[in-house]
Amino acid sequence: MTLIDALHWRYAAKRLTGAKVPQAQADRILEAVRLAPSSYGLQPYSVLVIEDPALLERIRPLAFDQPQITQASHLLVFAAWASVSEAEVDDFLRLTAATRGQPLADLAGYRDAILGTIRGFPTAEARFQWACRQAYLALGTALAAAATERVDASPMEGFDPAALDQLLGLEARGLRSTALLALGYRDAEADRHAGLAKVRWPRERLFIPLPAS
Amino acid sequence: MTLIDALHWRYAAKRLTGAKVPQAQADRILEAVRLAPSSYGLQPYSVLVIEDPALLERIRPLAFDQPQITQASHLLVFAAWASVSEAEVDDFLRLTAATRGQPLADLAGYRDAILGTIRGFPTAEARFQWACRQAYLALGTALAAAATERVDASPMEGFDPAALDQLLGLEARGLRSTALLALGYRDAEADRHAGLAKVRWPRERLFIPLPAS
Repeated sequence: MTLIDALHWRYAAKRLTGAKVPQAQADRILEAVRLAPSSYGLQPYSVLVIEDPALLERIRPLAFDQPQITQASHLLVFAAWASVSEAEVDDFLRLTAATRGQPLADLAGYRDAILGTIRGFPTAEARFQWACRQAYLALGTALAAAATERVDASPMEGFDPAALDQLLGLEARGLRSTALLALGYRDAEADRHAGLAKVRWPRERLFIPLPAS
Repeated sequence: MTLIDALHWRYAAKRLTGAKVPQAQADRILEAVRLAPSSYGLQPYSVLVIEDPALLERIRPLAFDQPQITQASHLLVFAAWASVSEAEVDDFLRLTAATRGQPLADLAGYRDAILGTIRGFPTAEARFQWACRQAYLALGTALAAAATERVDASPMEGFDPAALDQLLGLEARGLRSTALLALGYRDAEADRHAGLAKVRWPRERLFIPLPAS
């Protein structure tokens, strides 16, 4: 199945059956997240992976009581680095040096470039928003990966991030939640969205060739 | 080739050969962008598609003189809706009604939900950042699609958005640029990044199972 076919097949499922996604498939979706692109490859986020029914029950009321949260096989919480600190960048540089078998000192210029970007944001909030955008690259990758696995997915922005961060203890981890992704299988009978035609801008509206022809 | 294989194959190419990507492949990458997920399916962005060498020459100095801009087959400029206006939402609702063959009046509740989200942001900048996050879902989808086509891609945040917006006349279109994507073919000899091992956080760092086991 091509990626285009997978994207046609997928939709934001609002009702799931509760069936479990086989671990091998869940692992491939997570591996796609791990391989996702990001600025500098920094991946300034973590992904909480929640399967525990009791915890899902506690999360659901923080997300407008959306049923797919407790019907999910796995709930992924994309949580960006709250501050994007120098210490986190240095962790990444150590990882880079170890992966590539090079001395850390060789990465001094690279370190300056990353820190220059991070310090260049006008506010801490702007820096966090940048980290969130990187997390959204991973979310987009996860949605593509789930669809190619024929695993349904429900991405959600409708939740109380502060309350969720508190419930999951994210502040202590230096994280703030930015998006949720429920994985599972669509309940086509219960989900009135399941049969609806996909709505997308036509090419002539979405794309602008320049110079205008 | 699986998506995982494609993600292993890809990297952010910093030097491209200048060879053209066949139009059929470029079209499939654009179609993946068109099918990309977004909040409400609104896709609050446009994508400028630039092949003209003269225009690419003018863009390059606005992006730290990065060579891959003029070496690209196609340069995509992801530009989010600057204001996310009620008129744009109503356009989307008309598209939805037409696609699904339903009366516009049936979408009144949906309209309220979308406008509620849009009006709920504390500032116009926060609303724009939300639109940018949606554009990053499309950018992530484009990166996955290009990799499955074995087309190289260079995503770039390093550019002067205000200067680029002015050059491309984006303000008059209600758009602000948020990311660039050069498509083409890696010049493995000229690109010192081409042979480097991919650096990614190990699973045990990127993913946090909850409750902790």
